[in-house]
Amino acid sequence: MSESTPVLRLRKNEERRLKAGHDWIYANEVDTGETPVKSLPAGAAARVEDARGKPLGRALLSPNSLIIGRLYSRDPEQEPSRSFFKKRIEQALALRETLFPAPGYRLVHGEADGLPGLVVDRYDDTLVLQAGTAGMEAHLDTVVSALDAVLSPTNIVVRNEAGVRELEDLPLYTRALKGDVPESVTLSENGGRFTAPLREGQKTGWFFDHRAARARMAPLARDARVLDVFAYCGGWGVQAALAGAREVTGVDSSGLALDYMHRNAELNGVGDRLRTLEGDAVAAMKELIADGEKFDLVILDPPAFIKRRKDFKNGLAGYHAINELAVRLVKPGGYLISASCSMHLPADKLLDVMRASARHIDRALQIIGQEGQGPDHPVQPAMPETAYLKSWFGRLLFRF
Amino acid sequence: MSESTPVLRLRKNEERRLKAGHDWIYANEVDTGETPVKSLPAGAAARVEDARGKPLGRALLSPNSLIIGRLYSRDPEQEPSRSFFKKRIEQALALRETLFPAPGYRLVHGEADGLPGLVVDRYDDTLVLQAGTAGMEAHLDTVVSALDAVLSPTNIVVRNEAGVRELEDLPLYTRALKGDVPESVTLSENGGRFTAPLREGQKTGWFFDHRAARARMAPLARDARVLDVFAYCGGWGVQAALAGAREVTGVDSSGLALDYMHRNAELNGVGDRLRTLEGDAVAAMKELIADGEKFDLVILDPPAFIKRRKDFKNGLAGYHAINELAVRLVKPGGYLISASCSMHLPADKLLDVMRASARHIDRALQIIGQEGQGPDHPVQPAMPETAYLKSWFGRLLFRF
Repeated sequence: MSESTPVLRLRKNEERRLKAGHDWIYANEVDTGETPVKSLPAGAAARVEDARGKPLGRALLSPNSLIIGRLYSRDPEQEPSRSFFKKRIEQALALRETLFPAPGYRLVHGEADGLPGLVVDRYDDTLVLQAGTAGMEAHLDTVVSALDAVLSPTNIVVRNEAGVRELEDLPLYTRALKGDVPESVTLSENGGRFTAPLREGQKTGWFFDHRAARARMAPLARDARVLDVFAYCGGWGVQAALAGAREVTGVDSSGLALDYMHRNAELNGVGDRLRTLEGDAVAAMKELIADGEKFDLVILDPPAFIKRRKDFKNGLAGYHAINELAVRLVKPGGYLISASCSMHLPADKLLDVMRASARHIDRALQIIGQEGQGPDHPVQPAMPETAYLKSWFGRLLFRF
Repeated sequence: MSESTPVLRLRKNEERRLKAGHDWIYANEVDTGETPVKSLPAGAAARVEDARGKPLGRALLSPNSLIIGRLYSRDPEQEPSRSFFKKRIEQALALRETLFPAPGYRLVHGEADGLPGLVVDRYDDTLVLQAGTAGMEAHLDTVVSALDAVLSPTNIVVRNEAGVRELEDLPLYTRALKGDVPESVTLSENGGRFTAPLREGQKTGWFFDHRAARARMAPLARDARVLDVFAYCGGWGVQAALAGAREVTGVDSSGLALDYMHRNAELNGVGDRLRTLEGDAVAAMKELIADGEKFDLVILDPPAFIKRRKDFKNGLAGYHAINELAVRLVKPGGYLISASCSMHLPADKLLDVMRASARHIDRALQIIGQEGQGPDHPVQPAMPETAYLKSWFGRLLFRF
C-alpha cells in the first residue's frame, strides 16, 4: 500500500454487510472522525477497514453520495489500474463469449462483474459506457484505455444519461471518447436483426436484458394476434412476428421508437404484419377494449414505475392499472407476459398483481414460466440490488 | 344438484384459503358435526359450503387423508363426469400443443390444470398416469375413458408408485388400463432423442420438468468437461454432449439408469464422449476431488432431500453437503447448475446454499440464470405447493 492511500474506517459492527459479500458503503457507516473521507476527491481508491483497523478491501469513493463508496476489490493492495480494469473486462468478456455467438450484449454489468458503477454494452465495434457513480466517472479514461486494449473497438461512447446519475449530482451527457457517436446501433437477438437509436434513444441503445424472456415467448406467438405494450423499438413485437405471429400491434408513446419498430420489422421481412399505435399505454389499451379487440398474446414491458423506494405505493398502483387493462385484452386461453424492471418490486409482488387482475375479471391464471434478466446481466447474489428484472408468463382461462 | 350430492361444510372462517384460490381442504377445517364426511367413500364429489351454507365449489374427497378434499371446480353443480374430464384434458392439451412440436410432455399437472391429484405424462402413443389421492384414484376409469376419447393412445398405463400415495394409504402398483405396460418409453427433448425405463424406472419414466433448464445449459456445455451428478438416464449429461461437451462424466447409484444413459448417448451419436461412475454421489464426488479432477461445468440434480416439512433440517444439510463438494470440482471461471425438486426448499434458500459453498472455498458466485419447472408443469399461483422445482446457474470466480 502506498503511503498516500486514503483510508475509510467503518464504525463498529458496520463491516457485517461487506463481509457477507455486499459491496456498498453508506455514508453513515463511516467513522468520519477517524477518516474524514468526505473531503477526498471523487474516485479516490480508499483502503476500507473495520472499526479495529482490519482491512476489508478497496473502494472507489463518491464523497457526495449516500452510497459513499463501493468495493471493487477485496484485496486492500489492489490499485484501480489499467491492468486491473483489463483483467475484470477479460473475465466479463469470457462469460459473454461463452454465451453468445455474436458480439452484441451487455459486456459489463456493474457490481456483478466486479466493476461497481460501470455498465458497458457492446454492439459489434461500438462500445457504449455508462458510469453510474462519481467514483467510477473519475476513472473513465483508464476504463476506456483498458477496453481499447482488450477489444480495439471503432467507437467508444459514453452515454451518461441515466437518472441514477442525478442521485450523485452528475451531469447528463453523451460523447465519444474514441471514434464517433453513431446515430444508431445494430445487433442480433434470437435470430433477428435489429437497430436502435443511440443519440436520441433510451439508455444505452437496446434493452438486452429481456433476450432470454423473448426467446421463451416464441412458441406462444406462433399464429397469434399479439399486442406489444411499451413496444419501444420492437424487441418483443418484431420477434413475435418472426416467431410466426399473424399480426402484431405495437403501442408506444414515442414516435421515434415506433419508427425504429417499423424499421426493424422491415429488416426482418415482417413489416406487413405490424401496426403501431402512438400514444399513452393506458389510453391505448382503454381504446382497444372499447373497440372490443382481443389478443392471443399480450406483452406488458413498462419502464420502471418504482424508481425509488418512496414511489412504491404509487408505482404498485401503476402496475395494477396496466395489468388490469391487459388481462381484459387477452382471449380466454390466451397468454399474458407481464414484466417489471423495478428493482423495488419483488417478483412475487408482480405475480400478486397479475393474480388480482385475473380474478378481477374471473379468470384463472396458470403460470407457465418466469424469467429474470438475461445471463449477460448477472446477479451478485449477496446484493439484491443487482437483480431488477422479472417477467411472468401466464395463461388466462375461464375459472376452473 | 342431485338430491344425493354429499355436502362438506366448513367451520367458520375456514373458507378464506379457498376463496383466495387454493384448492385444498384440510380435515380439521370441516364442520364434522354438520357434515360427517369421514364416513363417505373415497372419490365422493362433495358440494363444499362455507359455515353459512354458501357454496364454494365441488371437491373430490379422500376421507382418510389429512387433506380431506380437493376442489376440482368452483361450480357447485359440476359433476366429475367423463365430459368434465374431457374438457379439462382438452384445455391442458391445447397448452402443450402450443408449446411443443412433438407429443412428449407432461399433459396434466394436477391442480394447475384443474385436475387435483392427477398427473398424466405423454410419450407419443403411450400415456402414463399417476393418481396421488384416493379421491382421484376412485375416478381413474372415467379419466382413462376421457383420455381415450381425446387422444386414442395405444397404451394407458397407471403407474401409482409415488411416495405421496403412502400419505393416503394407497397401494403402490403399475398396470395397463389400455394396451400394455411397455418396458421403456421414448421421447424427444431439446433436439435429442431419449429412452427411459417405465416398468422399473423412477416416477413416470422421464423427468420432463427440467427441459427448459437443460436448454438453458447448452452454451455452457460447448467444449466443456462436464460432470453430471445424479445423472439418471442422462437428461442433462447427454444433452451436454449434444451441445458440444468434450467429455461427460455421469454419476448415479443405479446401474439401470446408467445403462439407459449409455443407450441415450449412443442414440445421439455421442457415446464415445461418455463415461459413467456407478455409486453414491457424495462418495463419487469425494473420489473425484481426491483424484484432482476439475470440470468446466458441474450439474447437481438430486432427488428430493426434503420430502416432508419435518425433514427440512436434515435435507438442508444434504444440499449443503453436495454443493460444497460440487464447487470444489468446478474450475475457476467454470459453472455450477444446482437444482432442487423439494417443494419445501424455497429457491432463495438453495441460492444461500450455493453462496455459502462458494465462500467456503473463497470463490465469488455470479448468478447467470434461474429456472423453474418447464411450462408443461404449470404453477397454480394461489398454491405454492404446485411450484416445486428450481435450478440456479452460477459461475464461480476467484474472489473479486
